[in-house]
Amino acid sequence: MSVYTQVTEGELAAWLANYSVGALVSCEPIKAGIENTNYFVTTSQGRYVLTLFERLPAEELPFYLELMAHLARHGIPCPAPIADLQDRYLQHLNGKPAALVTRLPGRSLEHPGERECGELGALLARMHLAGRSYPAYLENPRGPKWWRLAAREVLPFLDTRQKNLLEKELQFQAEQRFPDLPRGPVHADLFRDNTLFEKGRISGVIDFYFAGVDCLLYDVAVCVNDWCLDAGSEKLEALRSRALLSGYQSVRPFTPLEQAAWPAMLRAAALRFWLSRLHDFHLPRPGMLVHAHDPEHFRGILEERVRAKAPWLA
Amino acid sequence: MSVYTQVTEGELAAWLANYSVGALVSCEPIKAGIENTNYFVTTSQGRYVLTLFERLPAEELPFYLELMAHLARHGIPCPAPIADLQDRYLQHLNGKPAALVTRLPGRSLEHPGERECGELGALLARMHLAGRSYPAYLENPRGPKWWRLAAREVLPFLDTRQKNLLEKELQFQAEQRFPDLPRGPVHADLFRDNTLFEKGRISGVIDFYFAGVDCLLYDVAVCVNDWCLDAGSEKLEALRSRALLSGYQSVRPFTPLEQAAWPAMLRAAALRFWLSRLHDFHLPRPGMLVHAHDPEHFRGILEERVRAKAPWLA
Repeated sequence: MSVYTQVTEGELAAWLANYSVGALVSCEPIKAGIENTNYFVTTSQGRYVLTLFERLPAEELPFYLELMAHLARHGIPCPAPIADLQDRYLQHLNGKPAALVTRLPGRSLEHPGERECGELGALLARMHLAGRSYPAYLENPRGPKWWRLAAREVLPFLDTRQKNLLEKELQFQAEQRFPDLPRGPVHADLFRDNTLFEKGRISGVIDFYFAGVDCLLYDVAVCVNDWCLDAGSEKLEALRSRALLSGYQSVRPFTPLEQAAWPAMLRAAALRFWLSRLHDFHLPRPGMLVHAHDPEHFRGILEERVRAKAPWLA
Repeated sequence: MSVYTQVTEGELAAWLANYSVGALVSCEPIKAGIENTNYFVTTSQGRYVLTLFERLPAEELPFYLELMAHLARHGIPCPAPIADLQDRYLQHLNGKPAALVTRLPGRSLEHPGERECGELGALLARMHLAGRSYPAYLENPRGPKWWRLAAREVLPFLDTRQKNLLEKELQFQAEQRFPDLPRGPVHADLFRDNTLFEKGRISGVIDFYFAGVDCLLYDVAVCVNDWCLDAGSEKLEALRSRALLSGYQSVRPFTPLEQAAWPAMLRAAALRFWLSRLHDFHLPRPGMLVHAHDPEHFRGILEERVRAKAPWLA
């Protein structure tokens, strides 16, 4: 459980007087999540999530909060930050930057089917279109620059096979250039557990704290690598992969350049998560209370993407 | 039924392509409402209300839409305007200014009890506090200036008793000056039918198209004159009146000046609705398809407020 900063009911009740959300009814720490401290908060007005930011640089927080606000007012079912009485999204609580956002209904699905993959694809495309008018800029915090830094730190822990794979993939990706792919704000972490469903519809996409500006296609690749795996394998399952991509293209068709970039993008998305999981596994942060994901899963995905050349768009 | 402008499903489906709300599933004209044309709109993403503005001056529409957006992002359960792909709340459809807003759940109550009156009071106060940081200004469109214009137009239709009441009340109100009462954006029309309840909680306050900047206390008076009447009478019922006012004061206590102004404010709120109902009754607009409310109800309320001197705050 990742509650780095404790907040008592008394502290929270007093803090909520800065908002127009009514009186505190209850609060409950959220065990999932490894980057921030989160609480479910219920008031006389509604249900919210309180986030205390433990690691993110304070100057980056407005990018995330304003992005969520932007997407929410375009009809994307994402957490909407609540402005306080001074009209600010970002506050402080117990020494940490803090924000209150709406809590969305629904639950994540461990085994989404074709229909749900199609829904996710369409929603992702709508989110990308809505994001194009978002004016702020933040480089994808887990993009190529970060890959190189993280690779340097984890290389000493790798065996020869892993080392070869990582060095070759970094070399391959360094040769890819995508200056003409459509870009915009991307979620960049829209795994199944960050998507909530209710009555067969997506009721929420959450956890925007890895968002940044990057190729829109990268966001699609991140999703496909998580949502469309064959059970117990790193291979992509054809029907769900096609469903996700058709759902997306029903809203925003891919350009020819995007089609050509797809296999490399799937590899880039696999590389990013392999690297972060290696990093969390071998170099855990002090106070990190959640077990790191096994990095081997994403090593397998990367190897498989290198091998299979991702037929679904090529 | 007030659908002044017809919109076909084909027209609406094409228009929705300007938004990130998914594909049109269904739409249905809304019969209530006399100022605008409204449709319930269901898309693959959610439920919305489409409003085509029939009468409001185009330059005033941003005040209303931005106010709703402001209040919504402060956690007030009001319709949230949906921004289009060009990031605008205000669009056009079939030659009319048009906007898409979220559709809120719940139903209005014809016979609210003490508990609901208390909830309304607290929510109204929270809305007032949240509104204080709203920067735009629009004079209350049904304020004293409008009273005098409307009175001139309806006087020829009044009998002697009505004429006396109207002229005396205009004279009385002209002698009142409230320069030091707290002011801000007020809903100014928060009758029972503009408030939605779900599971005993207020799930929505709707129809902001009479909003403007005025004394906050005026908004309270408008509510009390509608929510707290004794059944079949123009008298205020003590328990519900006290519940509404305590609910309000649990969030924002009245100042001594507001307490002193209360009886006159209840009369001002009664006068405003008597005048608009007289106007709609005697001078209906061409194409107005809804039966006007009987003006006599608010004449009775005004007479009663003049007589009873509103004990609840004095």
